[in-house]
Amino acid sequence: MNLILLSDSDFISTHRVRLSGRRFLHIQDILKAQEGKTLTVGLINGLIGQGTIVSPKSEQNQVVIPDTHSCSSFPRKRESIELEVKFDSKPPQALPLSLILALPRPPMLKRILFSAAMLGVKRITILNFNRVEKSLWNSSSLKIPAMTEQLVLGLEQAKDTLMPEVTIKKGFKPFVQDELPAIIKGSLALVAHPGSPRSLPGKTDQPVTLVIGPEGGIIDYEIEQLKAAGCQPMDLGPRILRTETVLPFIVGRLF
Amino acid sequence: MNLILLSDSDFISTHRVRLSGRRFLHIQDILKAQEGKTLTVGLINGLIGQGTIVSPKSEQNQVVIPDTHSCSSFPRKRESIELEVKFDSKPPQALPLSLILALPRPPMLKRILFSAAMLGVKRITILNFNRVEKSLWNSSSLKIPAMTEQLVLGLEQAKDTLMPEVTIKKGFKPFVQDELPAIIKGSLALVAHPGSPRSLPGKTDQPVTLVIGPEGGIIDYEIEQLKAAGCQPMDLGPRILRTETVLPFIVGRLF
Repeated sequence: MNLILLSDSDFISTHRVRLSGRRFLHIQDILKAQEGKTLTVGLINGLIGQGTIVSPKSEQNQVVIPDTHSCSSFPRKRESIELEVKFDSKPPQALPLSLILALPRPPMLKRILFSAAMLGVKRITILNFNRVEKSLWNSSSLKIPAMTEQLVLGLEQAKDTLMPEVTIKKGFKPFVQDELPAIIKGSLALVAHPGSPRSLPGKTDQPVTLVIGPEGGIIDYEIEQLKAAGCQPMDLGPRILRTETVLPFIVGRLF
Repeated sequence: MNLILLSDSDFISTHRVRLSGRRFLHIQDILKAQEGKTLTVGLINGLIGQGTIVSPKSEQNQVVIPDTHSCSSFPRKRESIELEVKFDSKPPQALPLSLILALPRPPMLKRILFSAAMLGVKRITILNFNRVEKSLWNSSSLKIPAMTEQLVLGLEQAKDTLMPEVTIKKGFKPFVQDELPAIIKGSLALVAHPGSPRSLPGKTDQPVTLVIGPEGGIIDYEIEQLKAAGCQPMDLGPRILRTETVLPFIVGRLF
């Protein structure tokens, strides 16, 4: 956590936030930060700034979470922390890359969402492909809180605040025929596909639309549909990379 | 597993291997491959070729592993598979990159070893830094079988056979002063270090030595030592990337 991401509900007054749970524990146990210490903070979809740890306002104002790990109630273990915050700088530029991703298995989905958010991707479409196992669509990792958690962790790692937008599309053909051409417009549209005659280009100044298919590969019909929508199949070299590695590899190459 | 990696001990005759355990289960349960099916195989540190699934030789020759999951002994569940193999092509070219890595936490170490092997890195040095937690040196993930497992998985993913060499160096100063200059010689030597005035170069034809420090950062003394040995500190941009993402990102950029 290189930045503590804040939302409106964390504010207890104009310039003061109170944090409990994961962020509080991180500040207390990992950063071991004491009163007076200043940390980097950012407002979701807003500015970046500094938060200085301050002593909490009177107990009356404080939300006290019962400490289930301790039998003694005195002295009470601290359960939250307060910061005086100010915001003064913009988050890093968004990566001009729109990612279209075949639904992967849950652990891989988690890592890719984290990684995409960290790399600055702001538009992610999770799409069905022929070789996506149907049962994966019932995974709890596709629920909004589970996905948001990974995106938040990725932003906090990268010191970013702009929350990526994730769209789920269970119909390959309607998405590729009706929606993809508009997404692609004005961008370099690539689909990673081993064995393609073209290989990945070098640095580009254009926005990019990148399609990453399932681990089992993209079937011919799907490649034809993607080509018809304007995507160029690209070979990434003789090594077959895992989806989670393809994304940073291509981002490193193109931007 | 895009290639089944074989070692000398798998051979039961000149052109025939018998596989049990992980590789057998993968062929049976994931690939659902039947007799007559041809799969890509490779010999550790050797050539790549094809293996055709054949019916097993007589039971007398077969190593039978007791089936602890079944009470019935008849009909016996198959526990191994035999392939007729031939080798005809070279593995992909090694990546001309020598990786020097601060010891990370065990889950990260596993993923980086996998990822480095997949990307074609052949020389990995795991090094102590000031901000490496001392207790990590006792981790079982540093044992040779644990590291080899990840390297094998990475090679199998990438259809490669050349096993990377991993060296462990618990002394930062003696390694950097006495050994690093010889490793660096003739290569572009970079150390990822946020805030450095230079940013990562683009595609290079030179071999590269890449130093990736601990998540907590590299201290000034260490940066000075690395510079004195010939490494150039490089900024990777405003986003702080995780170690496992830095490697494919830099490989995509440089090669």
